[in-house]
Amino acid sequence: MAKILTFSINEERKVGLISEDGQSVSPFSVPSELASTGLLSILRENAIGLPETLAPIPLTDVQIEAPIPVPLRNIFCVGKNYHEHAHEFAKSGFDSSASAGAVPKNPIIFSKLPQTVVANGEEVIINNAVSTAIDYEAELAVIIGKGGQGIAPENAFDHVWGYSIINDVTARDLQGKYSQWLIGKSQDTFCPMGPWAVTKDEIDVETACIRCFVNNELRQNSNTGLLIFDIPTIISTISEGITLMPGDIIATGTPAGVGIGFDPPKYLKAGDTVRIEVDGIGTLENTFQEIN
Amino acid sequence: MAKILTFSINEERKVGLISEDGQSVSPFSVPSELASTGLLSILRENAIGLPETLAPIPLTDVQIEAPIPVPLRNIFCVGKNYHEHAHEFAKSGFDSSASAGAVPKNPIIFSKLPQTVVANGEEVIINNAVSTAIDYEAELAVIIGKGGQGIAPENAFDHVWGYSIINDVTARDLQGKYSQWLIGKSQDTFCPMGPWAVTKDEIDVETACIRCFVNNELRQNSNTGLLIFDIPTIISTISEGITLMPGDIIATGTPAGVGIGFDPPKYLKAGDTVRIEVDGIGTLENTFQEIN
Repeated sequence: MAKILTFSINEERKVGLISEDGQSVSPFSVPSELASTGLLSILRENAIGLPETLAPIPLTDVQIEAPIPVPLRNIFCVGKNYHEHAHEFAKSGFDSSASAGAVPKNPIIFSKLPQTVVANGEEVIINNAVSTAIDYEAELAVIIGKGGQGIAPENAFDHVWGYSIINDVTARDLQGKYSQWLIGKSQDTFCPMGPWAVTKDEIDVETACIRCFVNNELRQNSNTGLLIFDIPTIISTISEGITLMPGDIIATGTPAGVGIGFDPPKYLKAGDTVRIEVDGIGTLENTFQEIN
Repeated sequence: MAKILTFSINEERKVGLISEDGQSVSPFSVPSELASTGLLSILRENAIGLPETLAPIPLTDVQIEAPIPVPLRNIFCVGKNYHEHAHEFAKSGFDSSASAGAVPKNPIIFSKLPQTVVANGEEVIINNAVSTAIDYEAELAVIIGKGGQGIAPENAFDHVWGYSIINDVTARDLQGKYSQWLIGKSQDTFCPMGPWAVTKDEIDVETACIRCFVNNELRQNSNTGLLIFDIPTIISTISEGITLMPGDIIATGTPAGVGIGFDPPKYLKAGDTVRIEVDGIGTLENTFQEIN
């Protein structure tokens, strides 16, 4: 029922409700110190329902920020969670988990550092001195609203607040080189998130199309209903012995069509724009720029 | 030159300097909101030197807390970073990275959730419904004082504030099952840290003995000078494309002698006490207790 935008205006961060016509945003009435945490401010303080709103501001007057500009802790991510992608990655030569089989028997859970997050429209850094194999991964991101431990699959959606889009940008060479994926997944700016977050009723995760375009060329085209391990399974797996917290983010995995799946691989280069669309959420678009 | 203790008294968290005789702690004069972050309060606000201290309090009157009770983001950890341990783990059957060889060619970097941290003397939870293969790992923990990206090995120690001890508690079965190590390493309470932190001049990391006892039986007995990838290499590897922050914690890896290295493995059971000693730092001791 709601699209929630974290934004800044006059250098102050706010969080608010996007109007039905998508032309304006009405800031929530929350203390400015809380609002500086973006969406976290309403997840912590008001898990049920949304706070009151103030007068609307035209979207053209605000700077879009990531829904949660600095997550409370590393973002949980699921690896190889669509069948065709599991196969394309396993044969790439960079998959340190390939010896266990292309399609995992259990969810593969790793993390990205909170400070990798950038907003819709912000640049992602290509640092060729560090990696020459930077790749995109379009993903549906789950935002936890209610914490818990030992969450049964049948109760998992009670703990979901809503969704956003994440580009799980990956340095394939570093992902292979360091065996565990943290470094390859956590290079500075490697987590575009947004453009906003939506409450869980905005999207049917059993049928939502997910698409990714690089410079307007369709590369990924799938459906979040095709996850190998569905959202209840992921939540119950993580929470079995780990207490999930409101504001936790889980990137659910990417479908086939990433750069490493092509022969030769299609890595990202300076000036490339990656656009991700998920039905019911919106469009996340970021341009990649070289430094050094 | 200093041992710094995070503690609480009358339910208020403080951070202070331990006296030379080890009998008292003099709280730093920092605002209570800052002091609630423990050691982070002086890393952020006073990177050079230490704040003024108030009147000393007998150590027997305070409750010891972990140096950084809630780290800013996941703790960086290094896997298989002592030769003999790399071999004992590779042959255990739980090492999803074993196909790349027992001894890694590059540092293996993974993470533990911030909320896994518990203090010296706090209980670690054994949840047999989730894992039946819980193991200890004695480790020297590096605490970053000065952030940065692209840190050269020769400058790495300029970015180190000091050290502490971490028990990188691990559910071996989950570490194998989920391929990436985050879940097996991040079960609730799986990161005892402390008993305090020391400034970098308190310890010579090239010669410091590190020992681990389970119920007074010596299990690990090594020296932090024997790391495969030394501290400068670890810091330069992580920071190559990731901006390190003051307060970041890096657990540097564990020597041989963990439970999985025995035949049959010696996993921890309810009532076991694990005591870790590192020269120049002190002793970290925690008892394991079953729930469910």
